[in-house]
Amino acid sequence: MITFDTSPEKYNHWKLTIAPPVATLTLDIQEDKGLFPTYKLKLNSYDLGVDIELNDALNRIRFEHPEVKSVVVTSGKPRMFCSGANIYMLGQSTHAWKVNFCKFTNETRNGIEDSSRNSGLKFLAALNGATAGGGYEMALACDEIAMIDDRSSAVSLPEVPLLGVLPGTGGLTRLVDKRKMRRDLADVFCTTSEGVRADRAKEWRLVDHVAKPQAFTEMVQARAMEMASQSDRPEGAKGVALTPLKRILDDKGYHYNNVDVQIDRTARNATITVKGPQGAQPSTIEAILAQGDQWWPLAMARELDDAVLLLRTNDAEVGTWVLKTEGSVDAVLASDKVLAANAGHWFVRETLGFIRRTFSRIDVASRSLIALIDAGSCFAGTLAELALAADRSYMLALPDDAAKAPKIALSSLNFGHYEMANHRTRIATRFCDEETPIERCKSAIGEPLDADAASELGLVTITPDDLDWDDEIRLAIEERASQSPDALTAMEASLRFAGSETMETRIFGRLTAWQNWVFNRPNAVGEQGALKVYGTGSKAKFNWERV
Amino acid sequence: MITFDTSPEKYNHWKLTIAPPVATLTLDIQEDKGLFPTYKLKLNSYDLGVDIELNDALNRIRFEHPEVKSVVVTSGKPRMFCSGANIYMLGQSTHAWKVNFCKFTNETRNGIEDSSRNSGLKFLAALNGATAGGGYEMALACDEIAMIDDRSSAVSLPEVPLLGVLPGTGGLTRLVDKRKMRRDLADVFCTTSEGVRADRAKEWRLVDHVAKPQAFTEMVQARAMEMASQSDRPEGAKGVALTPLKRILDDKGYHYNNVDVQIDRTARNATITVKGPQGAQPSTIEAILAQGDQWWPLAMARELDDAVLLLRTNDAEVGTWVLKTEGSVDAVLASDKVLAANAGHWFVRETLGFIRRTFSRIDVASRSLIALIDAGSCFAGTLAELALAADRSYMLALPDDAAKAPKIALSSLNFGHYEMANHRTRIATRFCDEETPIERCKSAIGEPLDADAASELGLVTITPDDLDWDDEIRLAIEERASQSPDALTAMEASLRFAGSETMETRIFGRLTAWQNWVFNRPNAVGEQGALKVYGTGSKAKFNWERV
Repeated sequence: MITFDTSPEKYNHWKLTIAPPVATLTLDIQEDKGLFPTYKLKLNSYDLGVDIELNDALNRIRFEHPEVKSVVVTSGKPRMFCSGANIYMLGQSTHAWKVNFCKFTNETRNGIEDSSRNSGLKFLAALNGATAGGGYEMALACDEIAMIDDRSSAVSLPEVPLLGVLPGTGGLTRLVDKRKMRRDLADVFCTTSEGVRADRAKEWRLVDHVAKPQAFTEMVQARAMEMASQSDRPEGAKGVALTPLKRILDDKGYHYNNVDVQIDRTARNATITVKGPQGAQPSTIEAILAQGDQWWPLAMARELDDAVLLLRTNDAEVGTWVLKTEGSVDAVLASDKVLAANAGHWFVRETLGFIRRTFSRIDVASRSLIALIDAGSCFAGTLAELALAADRSYMLALPDDAAKAPKIALSSLNFGHYEMANHRTRIATRFCDEETPIERCKSAIGEPLDADAASELGLVTITPDDLDWDDEIRLAIEERASQSPDALTAMEASLRFAGSETMETRIFGRLTAWQNWVFNRPNAVGEQGALKVYGTGSKAKFNWERV
Repeated sequence: MITFDTSPEKYNHWKLTIAPPVATLTLDIQEDKGLFPTYKLKLNSYDLGVDIELNDALNRIRFEHPEVKSVVVTSGKPRMFCSGANIYMLGQSTHAWKVNFCKFTNETRNGIEDSSRNSGLKFLAALNGATAGGGYEMALACDEIAMIDDRSSAVSLPEVPLLGVLPGTGGLTRLVDKRKMRRDLADVFCTTSEGVRADRAKEWRLVDHVAKPQAFTEMVQARAMEMASQSDRPEGAKGVALTPLKRILDDKGYHYNNVDVQIDRTARNATITVKGPQGAQPSTIEAILAQGDQWWPLAMARELDDAVLLLRTNDAEVGTWVLKTEGSVDAVLASDKVLAANAGHWFVRETLGFIRRTFSRIDVASRSLIALIDAGSCFAGTLAELALAADRSYMLALPDDAAKAPKIALSSLNFGHYEMANHRTRIATRFCDEETPIERCKSAIGEPLDADAASELGLVTITPDDLDWDDEIRLAIEERASQSPDALTAMEASLRFAGSETMETRIFGRLTAWQNWVFNRPNAVGEQGALKVYGTGSKAKFNWERV
């Protein structure tokens, strides 16, 4: 079983150094410490384990080091920044593993940009040596890229010419969308396995700054300080420790304080129940800080994030996630008020960011999502996002029992802070940006809405009464489980991201869909495919048909 | 060999009836007249041959019937509008055939919307019976959808539950992007094979108008007249006949008056040479109309369109298209001036639309495109779009021979009229919407630009001199031919459509890429895949892993 929790003292591959206002993340991969013993992580090449540490390190910087305003990402190996994802690991992996691996690395890279955009944390890639494939894609996720001009180091995206696959972890998209590289130059760059050296790299917009070896460290430090000076992260704040998650894994699922996952592997579904805040909740920033990572919004989000990652990686056949909540609508709304009122405080801002990125992981989960809004549930505000993230929702109608009838409710947070990868709220995406239904929902902020009212506003899909409820839910879940997993995944990926796209959705949509196709083609993964024969001395044999 | 030219008197499946201002396209498929004898086109289901006729009929309406202002698309069969693409045809087809078939049908449907947006031609789908899958996707391409309320006919997208593939000819995208259907309702609709009947179809925004059988014809006629009244197509204009293309097909390639295609099947490349206007060209609208379909812009575009379709469909292994032009830069610029000055005239507007859609076919061709700008070429204005559509371009630098040195030039048409599927010009897309380089190009309108000047403006990729030219071109083409066809296709699809997306690019990008992936998965096309076993009485067997 792959797990995602770690901490700096356990890192095998990264070193996190804090020298306020700058943090340095140094990549120094131990080639024998791959997740599996069947490959060696030579030349600073990475596997999922390396990215799990990076994800953890970013969260440490976000929460434990508010004094950090800019982050330098560099390498601890001489003349080698990073050679990208390990090719032998990819060659040995199943299709599902490759796709899930790319998804997680994409999320980590998008998370870097999310923090830059929303939390004042600026990133500088310091390419102190050869930078290839996924190594360069990691650099592309940073705000700026500095490169050593030593007459030999090159940046390259050799996936197409060497491996018959794409620079699919954002590479192709970021070249043109983010760095505004001309597409014909990108074409030349992406079909040239040797890449380009510093002078041309700067001319072509592949990097922002170049310096000779003797001046490189100083230049990087100066840029990092300059970037830090543009940050609005706080002065003199004390960090909040991210303590280990308390989690029980057993045959039935995963169990946390605020999140419970029941897995039915025979029926191939999992029920994820998120509990609302219990007992008195802090309402001042001092009280919030005193709770630290046990503060409900952060504790809940960390547990949900972990559960989503575990399910995605370890339970591929569990194709339907049933989303439930448990608790008090009022308590979630009260919690949202505190979040909204303190959204400008660095810790609350980071918490909102963590929740936003966790919900984003759900949006791109290749699982059918069915929200069940039943008695005792609390799909309100922050937790209403779970119902809005679902492919469909069922809400129990109890017109004769107003007290017991479940309610949902919206808060101001449903209209900001939890934007999807398309930079729009789930409400706006749901209503295809049409003003009238969005405004009607806004007017209902704070009101408890029963099934009729929620249905009238377009917030829920189907509202069976208690006579039909059990049968209807059972049939819906069974029917979903009977349909083609691939068709469902592809359909959901299309319907969840209606309307305008962003760089991030283009990475998850256009680029990832094409990469998944390539990852499934004999020209890449067949016995004589380019990815399979790499390093064997054999040449790939292609079917030349253009599809 | 599949060819795409036909004419109304040869149609097997469509009837085109003109009753100005309304044209009616009646689908009445002859089940024994499929392109291949291995399947029958039952239940008004279609194959590529049906869509070839539709494409032709649309062009007839555009050019031969300017008096038509709205088009009704309906069926000649009782209680059955259209059941979509023929499933047995899909089940028997190769992956490449399926993908190419979907591409052409997508282009035809996007072309309907292009004519509605740009040429005042409005489309009304009149669903007079059951409408499923691709049949409903055809309806979705129309401006409005009218549906018969006979208590039995339903609209449905049963691809996911029945076939394990997507409603991939725009269906998923148009539901949410165009018709602004809520995504949770779309989820229910797309996973329910029986579909929904008229009342719910209207409530869910799947159709615009419903009527009982006895009132249906009248309602359709009234809507068609109303839509015609909103059109700005001309009164009393005389149409221009589209005469059969003069084309010679031989072992070496395809040869037309203005376009020549030389195919090297061993090296797997084709050289497409487009000739500029020769001799005196008309400058008044009367003289243009007198030339009719022999007018250079239209004649050239019809031939180029045909060549592109033939190459895409019949020469899948020919992976690189070398784009060349031959003629006078001044002559093309002069022609562009006439086009621009008369762009408001219906015939010129239709010609510009035809050229725009032809260039769009090149943008989505799954072929590497290399433009060669050598001596005697005329990549100017309209034809400069070919160089801008290319993945990269090579321009011969002859600094010591200004007279012989090839020139390119821009015209006002490069900044409007030839928008890509992303609704932006190729210049804007090339420069990622950055103002400065776009404005610099605009300032150069009309100027002949040699290799240095073109390179300086960012219009060409590489400018070898005559010593290097032959070797550099040869190596570039050979190198391209050696790389994985799949990786190149996927890379090009990503780089060609940088930046903001539209419904059309989302259909070609997100939706098509996912569909291609599904079309390649055992769950759809394996021996026990859903598409393979459909109609055999066997049930599909799925690998349940979610990828």
